[in-house]
Amino acid sequence: MPLYALTLEYDGGPFVGWQRQENGLSVQQVLEEAAAKLNDGVLPASIAAGRTDAGVHAEGQVAQLTLARDLPPERLREALNFHTRPYPVSVVRAALAPEGWNARFAAVQRGYRYRILNRRARPALDAGRVWHVQHPLDAAAMHAAAQGLLGKHDFSAYRAAACQAKSALRTLDRLEVARLGDEVVITAEARSFLHHQIRNLVGTLVEVGFGRRGVEWPRRVLDSRDRTKAGQTAPAEALTFLFVRYEVEPEWR
Amino acid sequence: MPLYALTLEYDGGPFVGWQRQENGLSVQQVLEEAAAKLNDGVLPASIAAGRTDAGVHAEGQVAQLTLARDLPPERLREALNFHTRPYPVSVVRAALAPEGWNARFAAVQRGYRYRILNRRARPALDAGRVWHVQHPLDAAAMHAAAQGLLGKHDFSAYRAAACQAKSALRTLDRLEVARLGDEVVITAEARSFLHHQIRNLVGTLVEVGFGRRGVEWPRRVLDSRDRTKAGQTAPAEALTFLFVRYEVEPEWR
Repeated sequence: MPLYALTLEYDGGPFVGWQRQENGLSVQQVLEEAAAKLNDGVLPASIAAGRTDAGVHAEGQVAQLTLARDLPPERLREALNFHTRPYPVSVVRAALAPEGWNARFAAVQRGYRYRILNRRARPALDAGRVWHVQHPLDAAAMHAAAQGLLGKHDFSAYRAAACQAKSALRTLDRLEVARLGDEVVITAEARSFLHHQIRNLVGTLVEVGFGRRGVEWPRRVLDSRDRTKAGQTAPAEALTFLFVRYEVEPEWR
Repeated sequence: MPLYALTLEYDGGPFVGWQRQENGLSVQQVLEEAAAKLNDGVLPASIAAGRTDAGVHAEGQVAQLTLARDLPPERLREALNFHTRPYPVSVVRAALAPEGWNARFAAVQRGYRYRILNRRARPALDAGRVWHVQHPLDAAAMHAAAQGLLGKHDFSAYRAAACQAKSALRTLDRLEVARLGDEVVITAEARSFLHHQIRNLVGTLVEVGFGRRGVEWPRRVLDSRDRTKAGQTAPAEALTFLFVRYEVEPEWR
């Protein structure tokens, strides 16, 4: 039974998130039901590199899928893109996975982008893709504050109450804040993230951007390990899962 | 009666285009009906720098509007953004227009962007914003071909049958084709464009990108002045009106 790797793009708007849930349609369900049509009706179980929340988008989510049939990766990609219609889920690349590969546990780096539209006027073109923040943000101060969070730390202060990870120790490799015209774009990279970690980091950095808190504050919040100290959880719809990297990269088609 | 200048962002998807029409909702109607609420119910007549087609988006359309009331531009912008809800039309900037200014006739430069998604997989995140072209495009060849079209020419071969301009003489200042990952992005700048000019240019350059036609062909089509010779009219939804420049720029707020 061949194991396939898939790179997925999706609009998180209409979904309850990656993971199957009772209360609505998930990306996982759309993918598995499309795959079942190529698998004699049998629903295959898929695993994703990141279980994105409701509303979170993906340009480069990676998932795995075992099928009973041997299909060239190009054909699997095309067939899945036929059967995932009309949902905004697209298989950008497919590969036969290397021996022992796992989409989630073999990942060595994950990247996300968070977009803030920082102007008075509400978004017309990017509604559902940005967090609309009307008060001016000092992106340079946010960036300076972010640099104090890099490295290996206990990120308990920035994890969700519902986070299921055993340890809150994570190594944050990159947290950059840059202004691009009316947008403030935050880029985050780590081997793995805690539940809501990026959205809690963004919600905290924004307090610095407003000038309500100093550049040192997000680090003090980190050191407190107390999640009641951090800023708000920033909205999901402005977050996009960009990429996953593996030690042994599948041969993407 | 003060004359106002407005910079507009809109998603062209739900509209029949900028201009009022019998058969559906236009951006102009949304704007004028919002303005009427600030004008004792009287519908003011607006004029736009570019009458974008159905489906065409704008990041920087400019329109003018005369109101009976004197309002600070900031307040006008905020009030219009309240009353244009829930439509995807947003007033990004507003200004009191300089003496004798006209949104359409005072414009000295207009800029557009056309986005082609050039990969096998259909778009999930950018559906309605890109032209999905599955066959690989040679962007460098398209760019080379585009350079042969710059300057002042009779663009009859690239205008729509319905084009109402008296003369087809236009000066094309910039037509750049660049590959950005899976995207081929075309940027066009001129003082003014003919109806469908950019979409016909893109549809013609794509023939070069496929290798079906040589780099010299779009120029030969131009010289023929025969619009039956050009390629297809590329889809509207991938086109965005980026900016308008004026000799005397309004004092934007």
